[in-house]
Amino acid sequence: MASELIESLQINCYIMNKIKEPLSVDRMPGAPLIITKYSSSFWKVTLDNPPINLMGPDMVAGLQRLMDEIETNNELKVIVFDSANEDYFVSHFDVLRGAELPQVSGKLGVTQWIDVSNRLHNAGVISIAVIRGRVRGIGSEFILACDMRFASKEKAIFGHLEVGMGLLPGGGAAEYLPLLSGYARAMEIAVSSDDFSAEIAEKYGWINRAFPDEELDAYVGNLATRISGFELAALQATKSTMLKRAGGGPNPFEIQESSNKFFELFQRPAAQKLFAKLMDMGFQTESDTETRLGHFLGTLAEDK
Amino acid sequence: MASELIESLQINCYIMNKIKEPLSVDRMPGAPLIITKYSSSFWKVTLDNPPINLMGPDMVAGLQRLMDEIETNNELKVIVFDSANEDYFVSHFDVLRGAELPQVSGKLGVTQWIDVSNRLHNAGVISIAVIRGRVRGIGSEFILACDMRFASKEKAIFGHLEVGMGLLPGGGAAEYLPLLSGYARAMEIAVSSDDFSAEIAEKYGWINRAFPDEELDAYVGNLATRISGFELAALQATKSTMLKRAGGGPNPFEIQESSNKFFELFQRPAAQKLFAKLMDMGFQTESDTETRLGHFLGTLAEDK
Amino acid sequence: MASELIESLQINCYIMNKIKEPLSVDRMPGAPLIITKYSSSFWKVTLDNPPINLMGPDMVAGLQRLMDEIETNNELKVIVFDSANEDYFVSHFDVLRGAELPQVSGKLGVTQWIDVSNRLHNAGVISIAVIRGRVRGIGSEFILACDMRFASKEKAIFGHLEVGMGLLPGGGAAEYLPLLSGYARAMEIAVSSDDFSAEIAEKYGWINRAFPDEELDAYVGNLATRISGFELAALQATKSTMLKRAGGGPNPFEIQESSNKFFELFQRPAAQKLFAKLMDMGFQTESDTETRLGHFLGTLAEDK
Repeated sequence: MASELIESLQINCYIMNKIKEPLSVDRMPGAPLIITKYSSSFWKVTLDNPPINLMGPDMVAGLQRLMDEIETNNELKVIVFDSANEDYFVSHFDVLRGAELPQVSGKLGVTQWIDVSNRLHNAGVISIAVIRGRVRGIGSEFILACDMRFASKEKAIFGHLEVGMGLLPGGGAAEYLPLLSGYARAMEIAVSSDDFSAEIAEKYGWINRAFPDEELDAYVGNLATRISGFELAALQATKSTMLKRAGGGPNPFEIQESSNKFFELFQRPAAQKLFAKLMDMGFQTESDTETRLGHFLGTLAEDK
Repeated sequence: MASELIESLQINCYIMNKIKEPLSVDRMPGAPLIITKYSSSFWKVTLDNPPINLMGPDMVAGLQRLMDEIETNNELKVIVFDSANEDYFVSHFDVLRGAELPQVSGKLGVTQWIDVSNRLHNAGVISIAVIRGRVRGIGSEFILACDMRFASKEKAIFGHLEVGMGLLPGGGAAEYLPLLSGYARAMEIAVSSDDFSAEIAEKYGWINRAFPDEELDAYVGNLATRISGFELAALQATKSTMLKRAGGGPNPFEIQESSNKFFELFQRPAAQKLFAKLMDMGFQTESDTETRLGHFLGTLAEDK
Repeated sequence: MASELIESLQINCYIMNKIKEPLSVDRMPGAPLIITKYSSSFWKVTLDNPPINLMGPDMVAGLQRLMDEIETNNELKVIVFDSANEDYFVSHFDVLRGAELPQVSGKLGVTQWIDVSNRLHNAGVISIAVIRGRVRGIGSEFILACDMRFASKEKAIFGHLEVGMGLLPGGGAAEYLPLLSGYARAMEIAVSSDDFSAEIAEKYGWINRAFPDEELDAYVGNLATRISGFELAALQATKSTMLKRAGGGPNPFEIQESSNKFFELFQRPAAQKLFAKLMDMGFQTESDTETRLGHFLGTLAEDK
């Protein structure tokens, strides 16, 4: 079969030309990010905020500093994002520390998170997310802002928890997801607040493709290595043309509008009560509640 | 595998919390609709127009009264549509009774069908179609106006018969379907006038997902039960944001334009001749012609 | 299973009504195209430019003459495009003869290739591509301009080679592909410059569907025969409505803009050097380089 021929070529190509030792591996000062430079054109950024990789103010601020660096770098071509924790790519937004996030940040007058994700989506580098473990809420919105997404069939679990908490997915999912999955599947993901497997995520266009765990790194390693060897002028002309044809990608001011609605809903007593219940159940900690959050959000609904 | 874990959780969750006895089961007066109320926030509406679930004036008028009720109800969150007949979700439009349908109905000055389907798509409740049996023509347009669609792998059959009858899909499919399946697959569905399996319907985005028949009710039961326990404010903020980002969904005036073209084509002698031939073959009755309509539309073409 | 019933009906229908002997089989004078007329409403056009089916000036000019003929023909309903070579549907653009292509051609003031592909997409006939062998670059852009695409699981291989050559996909892919596959998968295809199987092409929406090689002709034969028996008025109303709802399809002036960028990038010394290297490796000839072009573009990148 043609498919076997091609896939074996892609894996073998990677094995034969396996990425050499990185030039450097550094933790970004003050941020839960590990930056691995394989070459001047290929970096990997590993999210590392134990124990469950919450996306909090330090991670968002670190990603913003990364964007500053990327935008002034004329050699970088491809950046891969993964997680240090195989159980959590990003659990979700650190709700307890939401107030610490700058409300206006960057040149567009939007919040820091929207500034970061919008700049990543429009950056002159190719961004690829490699997902193992749970990726929910803002974690899903982070990978959606990347150019591409690949996930482990065995280890990746996807979800949007917001509706189950009395909120809406307000950090980009309402804008990015329907473009990839269509309205009907985006609605199912959002209003179910349930967990989804990598196979379903692939079927719904949430990710480019799901791979058996043992093939995932080989595929992405081969892809990123290829990209890092191609000409920057060609990569940038392709990305800017594709983005332009897609209407420039999601509008950051529309995301800001969704985000305002998110915080408006969160202020309500009903949402505060749901949040308090979840905290009692171990939310935001290493707990069965986080492991099977989709399931527990359903039981929370039944309690009412 | 993550997928097995998640899917088993979703099914088990349903079995453990199985929907209790409904509060009420009533037939809508003068309409082929059975309304089952599981709670004030979760209703099921069953299409029941024997023998082949034709969509005729009574069903359309009943659905319009249902929309009146839904729009003034402040407790309902989720509505599931299924059929009393496992062989026919909706066979198609009752062509013999087309003249009975009001040409202007509702606030937009569009026909009754377009009023109904547009209001369903924009309603402040989440709508889910559960499909067993044949769903063709206006039946497909009805499920496309719902927020989500799930079907039985063994029992669901999908088709657009219009082109085979000398017409075009004029009740919404030309507007809704390409947004989900893309132009190329929507064209294949429409110009083939053939039958498609639930697997292909899933592949093409026509439905969210196809399930083995024995798992279909558990998945949708779990999903609807979850939604009915979530907060109405969260559900409505999510749906209205997603719809707004998708440009407000299909434009009812464009559907009216397609519908006008449908009736214009139907007036032509060539279309009347095809319709007469089909009637001679048992169209609109319990017959092999209806069972394998895709096939017989092809043979009709060869006769010419 | 419903699917087996339907698929067996579709194949059997074809076998029972197998296409009779064609009325005529003619080579277009001066063009590498074989035109087979099965009836006044059903034609097949076979691309035949040995040894590797390069898309050169003669093929583009021949396709333009075909469009002239199609646009003045009032009986033709469906046209199927295939290749005489099972290893190459279209290898890619004949880079050595690019200068021979008219820079302004047709009524829109665009280049000849853009005129041809835009007129094909908007033609009043239904166009279907049947793919065996490699289809890369402008070959992919040709099939994307057709209404539908079906491919052999065993024999079809898809790719966009442009980025690997220091260019961008400038003949329509940046406009057509994201509409079918979404931005993320279109980006993966374009910036990887790698080969993809028919299964992945189906998963990504690049084609309608992949079939086992022995079923491919039966499916397309049945589909085209059905279409050729339906009414032209119904087919044209359906296609024009679907196209209109999709915003009229890709904009030829945007494609012209992408195409200008392609030629601008090609003038650069860096791209000329890559092209020279590829020519040394057997590019544009029957060679291992063409057979496994995706692979060799990757090795080229590593050489730098």
